[in-house]
Amino acid sequence: MRLRKINTTSTAPETGFGTNVNASNQRFLNKDGSPNIARLGEPFFQFINIYHSLITMSWRKFNVIVLCFYFTVNLIFTAIYILLSPDKILGMLYTTKYEKFWEVFFFSAQTLTTVGYGRLNPSGISISTIAAVESLFGLLGFALATGLLYGRFSRPTAKIIYSDKALVAPYRHRDFEFKDMTAFMFRIANARRNQLIEIETQVIFSYNAEEDGRIQRRFQTLDLEISKASFLTLSWTIVHPITDKSPMFGLTLEDLDNLEAEFFISIKAVDDGYAQQVYSRSSYKSSEIVFNAKFIPAISQLPSGQTAVDLKKISSYNLLS
Amino acid sequence: MRLRKINTTSTAPETGFGTNVNASNQRFLNKDGSPNIARLGEPFFQFINIYHSLITMSWRKFNVIVLCFYFTVNLIFTAIYILLSPDKILGMLYTTKYEKFWEVFFFSAQTLTTVGYGRLNPSGISISTIAAVESLFGLLGFALATGLLYGRFSRPTAKIIYSDKALVAPYRHRDFEFKDMTAFMFRIANARRNQLIEIETQVIFSYNAEEDGRIQRRFQTLDLEISKASFLTLSWTIVHPITDKSPMFGLTLEDLDNLEAEFFISIKAVDDGYAQQVYSRSSYKSSEIVFNAKFIPAISQLPSGQTAVDLKKISSYNLLS
Amino acid sequence: MRLRKINTTSTAPETGFGTNVNASNQRFLNKDGSPNIARLGEPFFQFINIYHSLITMSWRKFNVIVLCFYFTVNLIFTAIYILLSPDKILGMLYTTKYEKFWEVFFFSAQTLTTVGYGRLNPSGISISTIAAVESLFGLLGFALATGLLYGRFSRPTAKIIYSDKALVAPYRHRDFEFKDMTAFMFRIANARRNQLIEIETQVIFSYNAEEDGRIQRRFQTLDLEISKASFLTLSWTIVHPITDKSPMFGLTLEDLDNLEAEFFISIKAVDDGYAQQVYSRSSYKSSEIVFNAKFIPAISQLPSGQTAVDLKKISSYNLLS
Amino acid sequence: MRLRKINTTSTAPETGFGTNVNASNQRFLNKDGSPNIARLGEPFFQFINIYHSLITMSWRKFNVIVLCFYFTVNLIFTAIYILLSPDKILGMLYTTKYEKFWEVFFFSAQTLTTVGYGRLNPSGISISTIAAVESLFGLLGFALATGLLYGRFSRPTAKIIYSDKALVAPYRHRDFEFKDMTAFMFRIANARRNQLIEIETQVIFSYNAEEDGRIQRRFQTLDLEISKASFLTLSWTIVHPITDKSPMFGLTLEDLDNLEAEFFISIKAVDDGYAQQVYSRSSYKSSEIVFNAKFIPAISQLPSGQTAVDLKKISSYNLLS
Repeated sequence: MRLRKINTTSTAPETGFGTNVNASNQRFLNKDGSPNIARLGEPFFQFINIYHSLITMSWRKFNVIVLCFYFTVNLIFTAIYILLSPDKILGMLYTTKYEKFWEVFFFSAQTLTTVGYGRLNPSGISISTIAAVESLFGLLGFALATGLLYGRFSRPTAKIIYSDKALVAPYRHRDFEFKDMTAFMFRIANARRNQLIEIETQVIFSYNAEEDGRIQRRFQTLDLEISKASFLTLSWTIVHPITDKSPMFGLTLEDLDNLEAEFFISIKAVDDGYAQQVYSRSSYKSSEIVFNAKFIPAISQLPSGQTAVDLKKISSYNLLS
Repeated sequence: MRLRKINTTSTAPETGFGTNVNASNQRFLNKDGSPNIARLGEPFFQFINIYHSLITMSWRKFNVIVLCFYFTVNLIFTAIYILLSPDKILGMLYTTKYEKFWEVFFFSAQTLTTVGYGRLNPSGISISTIAAVESLFGLLGFALATGLLYGRFSRPTAKIIYSDKALVAPYRHRDFEFKDMTAFMFRIANARRNQLIEIETQVIFSYNAEEDGRIQRRFQTLDLEISKASFLTLSWTIVHPITDKSPMFGLTLEDLDNLEAEFFISIKAVDDGYAQQVYSRSSYKSSEIVFNAKFIPAISQLPSGQTAVDLKKISSYNLLS
Repeated sequence: MRLRKINTTSTAPETGFGTNVNASNQRFLNKDGSPNIARLGEPFFQFINIYHSLITMSWRKFNVIVLCFYFTVNLIFTAIYILLSPDKILGMLYTTKYEKFWEVFFFSAQTLTTVGYGRLNPSGISISTIAAVESLFGLLGFALATGLLYGRFSRPTAKIIYSDKALVAPYRHRDFEFKDMTAFMFRIANARRNQLIEIETQVIFSYNAEEDGRIQRRFQTLDLEISKASFLTLSWTIVHPITDKSPMFGLTLEDLDNLEAEFFISIKAVDDGYAQQVYSRSSYKSSEIVFNAKFIPAISQLPSGQTAVDLKKISSYNLLS
Repeated sequence: MRLRKINTTSTAPETGFGTNVNASNQRFLNKDGSPNIARLGEPFFQFINIYHSLITMSWRKFNVIVLCFYFTVNLIFTAIYILLSPDKILGMLYTTKYEKFWEVFFFSAQTLTTVGYGRLNPSGISISTIAAVESLFGLLGFALATGLLYGRFSRPTAKIIYSDKALVAPYRHRDFEFKDMTAFMFRIANARRNQLIEIETQVIFSYNAEEDGRIQRRFQTLDLEISKASFLTLSWTIVHPITDKSPMFGLTLEDLDNLEAEFFISIKAVDDGYAQQVYSRSSYKSSEIVFNAKFIPAISQLPSGQTAVDLKKISSYNLLS
């Protein structure tokens, strides 16, 4: 089967994915905007990657890791105390070996957290030294936890809601005369209460093309009706009018399938709360595109007269008959 | 009543408010620059929103929340200790049930803050375990507090004082010949001692327009006499000269009322103390505009010869006869 | 005396100082780049200003404030304990009233720092409650200290060394033919070991001018031979060639005095260590300008062959005969 | 020997290294991108430099410094206690002078970390005062450690892998007709898992030139086939086509040697994890350039169909026969 020829009048941006990469029906960008690329030959252990994982993982996972770490460190120090001379820990009240183990374990916990009640207290040089090291370790550990917790909260990230589907719908614009004109469109909204200002959007259309008998990957920027806005407070429908100069001109859904089309969406904005630039990306594969449909408005007027946006309706659309 | 026609030669920026939103005499931007838009369908619970609230709320409210949180957490752990086996807490001196409750409560407080005097100290596995968890919880809680306090202080935000009213006043400029020329102007100053440098101002005029019998919202950027400055150390009067090309040309206060006019002000600057970009926004509705008035200078010379700016005079103006 | 007329072909930037401000021989910018402007009508108390002061004050002053704060808070809590019922603090060993006071004071210190040895420990509801509040207060205080210390270290600031004097010296450039051409120049270097990259310099010449019999302040950007550089690793002599189009053309030192000339220097760079934009400003008054002098090179070659810059020589110059 | 003449049609950027610096076969930029310049006359002690060193040193070195600092501070306070009146430390169990020293040392450690078990506890005004100061010192020290640990993790830095060698290889481009055309190229990849987006590359060619019999240093920007990319997820080969307008046109490896050529590489990107600009630099000397060689692809397709990049192959190349 021969691939459909595509208009190439619009600019061809460099995406960093290269032209020799064959898509073979995989995504390049995952829905969350991360590239779908494996990495080989990475060093096994990189502090910065661990930090990054701890910063970005879910709260549930983070809490479990903190608890496990706390338990494990206590267990290790407990083992050291027991191997050295547990009887130098004064004030123990145990009657059984089992209770003795736990007394040592709780002495360790009281040292690590620097709560140091004092009923259990170290004597002798070896045990006192280990306790001094453990309390240092504890303080540094909680210094680390402070940094991690702050990092988790304060990292400026946009959370943009994208409509599940992109639509190709009839479109009328005062500047164009065509009656049957359509446009490629999707809808976004800000999931956070932080204001997003100075928003910029870029849409790149990527597809397979045949050159000298070899299949190559091509990338083209799509011209948008409006690509910049001062605020993202309501929903925003981003529209690429499919003029006769658009690379999408004349393409059917079947064509997009054959071309293994993927639309890369990049959004850049300033988060007003942090006064910092934030970035969001996503992509639409041909399976996530619906022809001949129209978004249902997500904006309404409250009885109070105030304008409201409904985040749950961002993906809602009607098929046109 | 027909709406007055407006010059549309100046550029029309995208504000993100859309053209189909009917103002019906509500503001779009509140005076503090936040959009006056309701949000429906938000997830009930979003950590990032809680963080953002804790960072931006008043100090009074923040302190009350911290105290309540401290009290509540202690109460919860007190309940757990009492339900398990409070008598495993050694060192209590109570004589009544009421005193016993408070001894347990203070044991909890001494554990949570890791002060751990030690007269009150845990024994037995169950109570010791809860105490170990509580001290971990305490440390993480104060790690969080550290992050919040740092976040509250270090968030770069501009605090710009805007004059209460915007004026439309007679105006003379060497480049223009008109005798009766006027200008739209308002005045700003920096409320903080941090230097603001590289300031940029944008003013957008928004109003209702009739198109095909439907009322639509229009937005136009106003050309400013000066839109950039190196420093904001004195007060700065921002001026839009109402030339015959201005969309405000010929408009009276009554016209602005009928058009439901709103002026969006955006200011962008670098905070020299944090070396970061900061943003400020505000708006003027027609009710906040005064015709034929002039600002009273806010700059004076001290007896020492030094130039001084008086922040209390930013809003002061004289009506012209 | 009539003021000398100045070329006004170069661009006139907005500095935010306004044209009506009469210099009367005061500086506008202090040598450290802060504006020499008084502020009246400021709110008495602004948290953000306190934070900013604590972040920017000298280490000596900061340490004294921390110690005084620690002492004062302990004194206040000591007073509260003594007023309530100091005998509820168990474990005291005092023999005199004076010793008793200090026992209570050290109990307070042991509570505030959460060291809580436990010989001194609270009993009774009132004293225990105050102790619980004090330990919370202590933890929050040290959370604050953490933020302040981090803020003090991590604030990205450029520290540029400016030559004490700016010179007006003979100058030869391949693009110009003039034999007697001179140039206005000053020299900078980076005082920190952090790399500064992507440096940009702007020089604004400000002076008095007579218009309609009134003295007005004028500002003009000076064209620089080179205004951007990739690195600031060596010293950099910034040069404004005084062509016949320069506003400085034909001016003598006496003229600069009469015009109450001041040169504003703005430098913008990226601090490679923090990956953030940093800013530095300074100014030269006519009293800091030397005519007919030449900078002594601050760059030399070490015996090892490595190039070296000597920060102590940045201000060194030779008078030309 | 006369130096080869170089095309100078491309732009000459200011690097900040000056033209009078004689390279004499030293590098200007080290491989890690730091300038190879000595600094004389620096102040002996600069807090900000210490902070910067502590932030950027290896973890091993950082940990050793923390441990040594902890030990030394304890030793100093131990000495103070012993000089004052060690017997005012209650609860000691020593039998020998040696054991007494260690009891005092561990009392100090328990105070510094605020663990304060309480068996060892201070009495008397002098010892209690020192203990109160030590616990304050300890808290501030760990506040500092929190800041340092956070700073170490959160500093946004790019870690770009550069190919060990730059190649000059045959090159075919649809826009050029030359059969024997070559290009200068090197390859990069992102060593971190953080996404790099909006990448920009600049290559500056620096070499010696003879002018009026004096050797001067010249700098020229090389035009790149592609200098910007949206993502750096795969490897990226940066290519300068050696057209007849390139300053490298006609140069052999021997010429590059004679010219003491050095290629400065600057890469600028946005780290998506931190939403911040990051910078990386490196350089190639003539000894690190290989003529007539070709990079071995570092991208492959996994059996799963996913595209993969192998970081270990970034430097791999084949010599062409």
